[in-house]
Amino acid sequence: MQMPPSPIRKLTPYADKARKKGLKVYHLNIGQPDIETPPSIIQAVHDANVKVLEYSPSQGFESYRQKLAGYYGSRNITVNADEIIVTTGGSEAILFALMSCLNPGDEVIIPEPFYANYNGFAVSAAIKVVPINSSIEDNFALPPIEAFEKAVTPKTKAILICNPNNPTGYLYSQAELEVLRDICVKHDLFLFSDEAYREFCYDGQTHISALQLEGLEQHAILMDTISKRYSACGARIGALVTHNKEVLNAALKFAQARLSPPTFEQILGEAACDLPDNYFDAVLAEYASRRDLLVKRLQAMDGVTCPNPGGAFYAMAKLPVKSSEDFCQWLLESFEHEGATVMMAPASGFYATPGLGQDEVRLAYVLNDEAIDKAMDCLEAALKAYPNK
Amino acid sequence: MQMPPSPIRKLTPYADKARKKGLKVYHLNIGQPDIETPPSIIQAVHDANVKVLEYSPSQGFESYRQKLAGYYGSRNITVNADEIIVTTGGSEAILFALMSCLNPGDEVIIPEPFYANYNGFAVSAAIKVVPINSSIEDNFALPPIEAFEKAVTPKTKAILICNPNNPTGYLYSQAELEVLRDICVKHDLFLFSDEAYREFCYDGQTHISALQLEGLEQHAILMDTISKRYSACGARIGALVTHNKEVLNAALKFAQARLSPPTFEQILGEAACDLPDNYFDAVLAEYASRRDLLVKRLQAMDGVTCPNPGGAFYAMAKLPVKSSEDFCQWLLESFEHEGATVMMAPASGFYATPGLGQDEVRLAYVLNDEAIDKAMDCLEAALKAYPNK
Ligand SMILES: Cc1ncc(COP(=O)(O)O)c(C=O)c1O
Ligand SMILES: Cc1ncc(COP(=O)(O)O)c(C=O)c1O
Repeated sequence: MQMPPSPIRKLTPYADKARKKGLKVYHLNIGQPDIETPPSIIQAVHDANVKVLEYSPSQGFESYRQKLAGYYGSRNITVNADEIIVTTGGSEAILFALMSCLNPGDEVIIPEPFYANYNGFAVSAAIKVVPINSSIEDNFALPPIEAFEKAVTPKTKAILICNPNNPTGYLYSQAELEVLRDICVKHDLFLFSDEAYREFCYDGQTHISALQLEGLEQHAILMDTISKRYSACGARIGALVTHNKEVLNAALKFAQARLSPPTFEQILGEAACDLPDNYFDAVLAEYASRRDLLVKRLQAMDGVTCPNPGGAFYAMAKLPVKSSEDFCQWLLESFEHEGATVMMAPASGFYATPGLGQDEVRLAYVLNDEAIDKAMDCLEAALKAYPNK
Repeated sequence: MQMPPSPIRKLTPYADKARKKGLKVYHLNIGQPDIETPPSIIQAVHDANVKVLEYSPSQGFESYRQKLAGYYGSRNITVNADEIIVTTGGSEAILFALMSCLNPGDEVIIPEPFYANYNGFAVSAAIKVVPINSSIEDNFALPPIEAFEKAVTPKTKAILICNPNNPTGYLYSQAELEVLRDICVKHDLFLFSDEAYREFCYDGQTHISALQLEGLEQHAILMDTISKRYSACGARIGALVTHNKEVLNAALKFAQARLSPPTFEQILGEAACDLPDNYFDAVLAEYASRRDLLVKRLQAMDGVTCPNPGGAFYAMAKLPVKSSEDFCQWLLESFEHEGATVMMAPASGFYATPGLGQDEVRLAYVLNDEAIDKAMDCLEAALKAYPNK
């Protein structure tokens, strides 16, 4: 079967060329945080006393799942260890959820723009993604209920959201989640909730998990990961969490077929559950400061629209250009400002509907304030210099 | 979609009960080696200096792929680093190979009995497994070419072998591999070669990789893993290796969708490439001694047939019982010999054709000689005592 190409990787060769020319490239294109991984959790791996590196249980170490249940409890998400399957990254949780709950040919509704790799997992599971549009003019709020109702067909089995969202940074409100709940209950759909960025919510807002929605106990499937939470992307540790026993049983069989998640990184994940309660304070403050700076700079640029994102570490911006793809390539190929340029992700790759997002980009604020400021100087100068507006 | 249940796990609750009764259970049922993981490769993980645990490249670290190419070279398999995609276990290499080379509805021919999880990966990829029978009477040799010719349809896209084989321990000869090559070339089929047990070949026999077959350069896809090679099952590090650029490109997209394989274990895998040349000598001697003992004991039992396996660490035995499944359950539920009993894998789960292998079991020699000897005492006594022959 044919996987769709990754829209984010298309520009990589141009970035390589820019670097070869001696330019500094500010990478605002990918969701790889620069935040240090907590040294204590790396230390846990160093301290692990392993004689025979055995397969772990397919659902993950019991001790880790117990601790994870504790972590969720501390977030007012009540689950027990048996309702958790440890996965190889959030990526595998998404794949297992889709494969366990849908049959080939079934449909999943996803508000667009969305994390582009959902397309790949949908291809792997031979299911159809039905996008419904959220727009930058509405700050990427949940589309109205009518849009969902219109999209539901007899083949619809699930709605997938990412909260807070990648690429928009949008944080869903309680009211919006209740709308989703009502649709899911009415049509008997699963609500897949990708909460990779749960810990990153700004302005004092609290995150609401799909698992906290009353009446949705059998429909809500949480797809989680430690990649962003603890700046531990290379660990490849995630989780599928649900109260639905049938889904757990189905997913466990997929987990058993691939035998087990990696051992050392489960040890790392377990250690992460022991981080002090205030661990996220500094990280959150850092991201919030970057967001404030990035958004302020973008909003001050002529012709640029940038809704203030409530969570995650991404912002979407509408630029005064015809094609953000051409612009992003031009930035790498033909532009420089004080020896540097910027790499951003053209937004069209995050939309499933052809033609949407052509003048939008996603920016990941995974660089420190100083770098973001310089990157914004670049972008501002570039927008002035760019010929194809 | 529905995954087939794992045939090997069915007996687990009975083993738990036996242990609760205070019985010692000799585990010959799973392929989890007891051999110590080389301490130097665990040390490499302990020594890894990681500040930010970042995503690694989707195809795996360049430095690891370079070393892996060196390892293959030392086995007379000529590949370069760009022809290797590092996967999360051999499991993922199998999934990527099937998904990259076949479309939903396509067929793959697999000599049975075969590694039961192939069924699960085939379900995930929505493809059909077409078994052709190899039998214990023929020592599980490759079925005659006519059997393959009869099984080929317009939907056939590949043949999958495991060499040396799990569950049979059969090591394919050069002549057999050339038969396979000729069929693959004639019908333009891929040859998927699962070489998880490459290093474990006995009696001075050398392993021949599918990548060594002349004229098969564009058809051969190697699915590999370090799980058994270095007794590092919990690492979840494998590889898909092929000279076929189109397949590499297709598989890379699957790899990109799931972002990357685990970081620490790639470091472990890289260190394994630096193990001294003689590392396998002791391991091989250990497995060979176990095999000799196990097979000798089995062959000496009344009514038992056990071909001498040429590789891997499994043996198949035909027992004088009506149902090996009932017998294996009975061993755990109703039998004991000197405070112990034996757990084996009923072979029917390794056959795709219903009704085959009913009186066969698979034994994994992953225990030391002393334990194997005691387990065989148990089995011998059990066969005498068992009522349902
Ligand atoms: C929304 C979202 N979900 C899931 C993932 C997958 O993350 P991982 O597989 O590293 O856990 C990502 C990674 O960027 C993401 O942004
Ligand atoms: C024949 C064969 N292939 C592949 C695998 C998968 O191994 P892993 O995913 O641990 O690399 C196994 C594991 O038992 C096996 O026996």
